[in-house]
Amino acid sequence: MNAYQVPVDALNHILFNVLQAPRQLAALPAFAEADEALMRQLLDEMGKLVSGRIAPLNRVGDELGAQWHGGAVTMPPGFRDAYQAFWQAGWPALSAAPEDGGQGLPAVLDAALYESLSAANHGWTMAPGLLHGAYECLKHHGSEALKSQYLQKIATGEWLATMCLTEPHAGSDLGLCATRALPQADGTYLLNGTKIFISGGEHDLTDNIVHLVLARLPDAPPGPKGLSLFLVPKFYADGSRSAVVCERIEEKMGLHGSPTCVMRFDDARGWIVGAPGKGLNAMFVMMNAARLHVALQGIGLLSAAWQKADAYAHERKQMRAPGAKETSPSGDGPPRAASAPRGQRSRAAASVGASFIIEHPAMQRTLNTQRAWLDASRVLAYQTALELDIAKHHPDPARRQQAERWCALTTPVLKSACTHQAFHGGSDCLQVFGGHGYVREWGIEQHVRDARVAMIYEGTNEIQAIDLLVRKVLADGGAGLCALLDHACADLGSGALAAPVSACFDRLQALTRALAGACAHDATLAYWVADDYLRAVAIALLGWAGARLEAAADAAPEPQRWRAATQALGRWVLPEFDMRCAIISQRLPVAAP
Amino acid sequence: MNAYQVPVDALNHILFNVLQAPRQLAALPAFAEADEALMRQLLDEMGKLVSGRIAPLNRVGDELGAQWHGGAVTMPPGFRDAYQAFWQAGWPALSAAPEDGGQGLPAVLDAALYESLSAANHGWTMAPGLLHGAYECLKHHGSEALKSQYLQKIATGEWLATMCLTEPHAGSDLGLCATRALPQADGTYLLNGTKIFISGGEHDLTDNIVHLVLARLPDAPPGPKGLSLFLVPKFYADGSRSAVVCERIEEKMGLHGSPTCVMRFDDARGWIVGAPGKGLNAMFVMMNAARLHVALQGIGLLSAAWQKADAYAHERKQMRAPGAKETSPSGDGPPRAASAPRGQRSRAAASVGASFIIEHPAMQRTLNTQRAWLDASRVLAYQTALELDIAKHHPDPARRQQAERWCALTTPVLKSACTHQAFHGGSDCLQVFGGHGYVREWGIEQHVRDARVAMIYEGTNEIQAIDLLVRKVLADGGAGLCALLDHACADLGSGALAAPVSACFDRLQALTRALAGACAHDATLAYWVADDYLRAVAIALLGWAGARLEAAADAAPEPQRWRAATQALGRWVLPEFDMRCAIISQRLPVAAP
Repeated sequence: MNAYQVPVDALNHILFNVLQAPRQLAALPAFAEADEALMRQLLDEMGKLVSGRIAPLNRVGDELGAQWHGGAVTMPPGFRDAYQAFWQAGWPALSAAPEDGGQGLPAVLDAALYESLSAANHGWTMAPGLLHGAYECLKHHGSEALKSQYLQKIATGEWLATMCLTEPHAGSDLGLCATRALPQADGTYLLNGTKIFISGGEHDLTDNIVHLVLARLPDAPPGPKGLSLFLVPKFYADGSRSAVVCERIEEKMGLHGSPTCVMRFDDARGWIVGAPGKGLNAMFVMMNAARLHVALQGIGLLSAAWQKADAYAHERKQMRAPGAKETSPSGDGPPRAASAPRGQRSRAAASVGASFIIEHPAMQRTLNTQRAWLDASRVLAYQTALELDIAKHHPDPARRQQAERWCALTTPVLKSACTHQAFHGGSDCLQVFGGHGYVREWGIEQHVRDARVAMIYEGTNEIQAIDLLVRKVLADGGAGLCALLDHACADLGSGALAAPVSACFDRLQALTRALAGACAHDATLAYWVADDYLRAVAIALLGWAGARLEAAADAAPEPQRWRAATQALGRWVLPEFDMRCAIISQRLPVAAP
Repeated sequence: MNAYQVPVDALNHILFNVLQAPRQLAALPAFAEADEALMRQLLDEMGKLVSGRIAPLNRVGDELGAQWHGGAVTMPPGFRDAYQAFWQAGWPALSAAPEDGGQGLPAVLDAALYESLSAANHGWTMAPGLLHGAYECLKHHGSEALKSQYLQKIATGEWLATMCLTEPHAGSDLGLCATRALPQADGTYLLNGTKIFISGGEHDLTDNIVHLVLARLPDAPPGPKGLSLFLVPKFYADGSRSAVVCERIEEKMGLHGSPTCVMRFDDARGWIVGAPGKGLNAMFVMMNAARLHVALQGIGLLSAAWQKADAYAHERKQMRAPGAKETSPSGDGPPRAASAPRGQRSRAAASVGASFIIEHPAMQRTLNTQRAWLDASRVLAYQTALELDIAKHHPDPARRQQAERWCALTTPVLKSACTHQAFHGGSDCLQVFGGHGYVREWGIEQHVRDARVAMIYEGTNEIQAIDLLVRKVLADGGAGLCALLDHACADLGSGALAAPVSACFDRLQALTRALAGACAHDATLAYWVADDYLRAVAIALLGWAGARLEAAADAAPEPQRWRAATQALGRWVLPEFDMRCAIISQRLPVAAP
């Protein structure tokens, strides 16, 4: 089993040829120094770090996992050293503000970093994964006193952070949280309650851990409006330990390298973050950052699964492929540089003319389809990361607003579609191995087990669909989504995907208007069709990304490799769009668009 | 976590109201004694055995698993006792011939038994799962001497059997097998070679194990035609042990209760089964039986996942459902008997009017869609089991031939579609639990891990698709498939599904003829579209099953429960049919049907 190799060339092609990221960032004075040369150099270094240092720890993370003993959690061998090297080299601070100890670089570099880290080692990456959200939350809502003590430690990653939201009876529904915070005379609060599913609630990676905790003041109303946010560290400034205890860690399907903790707060002293009753507002800053981050995990996990399957398909022979010659010479595979066999051919295989797995149509289809998902969802996710910076730093308020709309609409789509694909498409990659995929040997089954959780956390994929349709699209009668599509239509170019994707956009706009009309008279309709609607939007936007990939293919070192993926997108990904529209249309009272 | 409860009422409804199994079997003199009363009694007893004795061992099978020590394999606690009770009660011999120690009952009862066993405990069920195929193989191909020593032991399940096919370089491609068989002067053979992925190659469930082994005679040609089949027992009649060693067992994604063995044959003495060079023919008898069996595993695993998710959705509250009242009283769920909450309501939940998960449209949709798959695939699989008996025992040769056609065409469809759904639909059931689905606590993640292998073994799902389209449908230009659809069309009744399913049948026939024409000119086309074609056939046949369920719904104790599933089938399962046709049509040279 080989460790993940960051596909730096592919990332470069997407960032510089497809998205022309430096041109987009040129309008933002904040990133005047982030030119293409710097970005390329950073991606190279990132590739070396991730492939060389983080990826090799993936398997031990799964097999040994995090271990709980009497309240302490020992991380798998090598995890602490790798994390210490990681933060000391400045990686967590990549996109944090320079005044907080950060490097002030664009969010899109952070996106490439976290996608790659997740591909290399999902479990390890859970630890720094919440840092940026915690940083933003504290920066925007924390008091000056709290910030002076904690902000830089979190920005740099010297200390790690948690989001303590879920309770035994409050999962998707945070309004049910029962943890209490009692105000003290000195302005601090004593917290009491139990939180579950706390990623990295306890570990030995860093010398301190900062918990951000949703809790209820004594006079708070029931429901979400009664929640406030508090900060409780593992260790106080005087070195004493807070009354926060890790009671146990969960046994999980995967992600064994990340301890999922049950945390008990027993009169644990902390400080309020933001105003009383505004805890969810403050927490949503973390959660929105986290949702794009989870989409990137999905892309990374699919990339890892794809890379293993592609390598295996090029080195293993089974059965004569249809149309193959008697003895299949090396290089008989699809016309791309990586198609030569890497492994040894077995004598038996060579003797009867078996073909490499990649030569079998069903397997080529699987690999090209998953690569189409990878390429297109990277384009979409990286553009969203660029829009995050544009929304924050662009001098033109209209452009900032447009960017905010993009992020609001695409974030739930990306979170849901990319995590769904990581699991289901990851399973397709496993299938390439046949029985060898089901055993541990090649490491592919770990990716599938690890990936499953991403469809659940940071808001289940069903909640993303409701967020998209009910809270965002229908809130303005579909105007924002239609405007986004109108605007994106200009990028479709003139390749083979342009016409079908343009037709998808038209149909999606008509469907959106019809839905907005119908939902005004039927309070539950949107909830019945939200999942299909999100998928339809996802496929249409992936089509947009595919059209952009098509237009830029000639600029790639291997144009044919990119064209095979966009062709697969048209053949095997886009057809889902019509199916989703048909499912929605049958629920509409008037003729379907 | 509750153990699986066999849904005996649902099985009864399908067998007696929907399929009218006794009426179909009445034409077969072999089953003159198998009347409805006997079948109902047997299903009741089966339900008690499976739920009471086998299901409770599922978790220990996963957590402790089978253990290898120095060549011996210890099964999880309780497995041997349960197996001994199982065979002594006559269950493995249910459908074996009375002259071999069997009960001579219809195969459809075996189907219900193995579906239920797989639902209850997939790992344990792997052990007896190969018995019937080994019995048929030995009965039809073994010499009288071999049969006198082994047939009854296998028919009754006193000894278990294995299929030793796969080798390190020969998985899907059995023609690459390199194990050698050297003929000896006494008519026996000495086998040398290594077989991998041997389920139950070694264990302590029974006092002997009978291996059926593909190997090559010294003068055999290369490829599949050089393979012969041999029988090598673990212990010979004189009590001495054969030279067959279990070198290790695999670490797997799931199915820990079944040891997947690497078996080394070191001059192991055995006997030939059938003629030299006809090993694959003899083995295919086992494999065809095994493929329907694997489809039933898929149905069982989905049933187990569905049952857990449905129970959870009725006892756990999260968020107010759209349209729900301020405080959701019990009984607010969908109108069916099982909709009342089973668990305790938490104080916090009740206080803010959260709804049961089942009241949320997205979750209702998931559960109804998976139940639609369950109901319809049971109808299809049980009918196939009935056709197996009809093919063997019907007095009219034309009816026998029609039954053979049905089995040949539906078996690969069922194997692929049911195992795909067990994993992907099982994952949808896991989603109902949110974060609680990803941890071990509720046992749902085990079903998803266990289910994954069924998409691979006994011929990967991609191989099933090639078997269907290339070997079966195109072999007669599509005539057999079209005749099957013509015949099935008579069963569609007049419910809501009749018209759309009839339209699917028409389109599928037109598409099949167009494909047969196009494939005559393009040797690889069929391989590119085989997966979509199998899915299209699967959805159309599930539609047929849905129409039959619709027609019989009024005979069920809870008609509304059955109608909810067929409605879900029409809304959320059937739309895939058009998508698959569209994907295939775009590859055809002439206008798509």
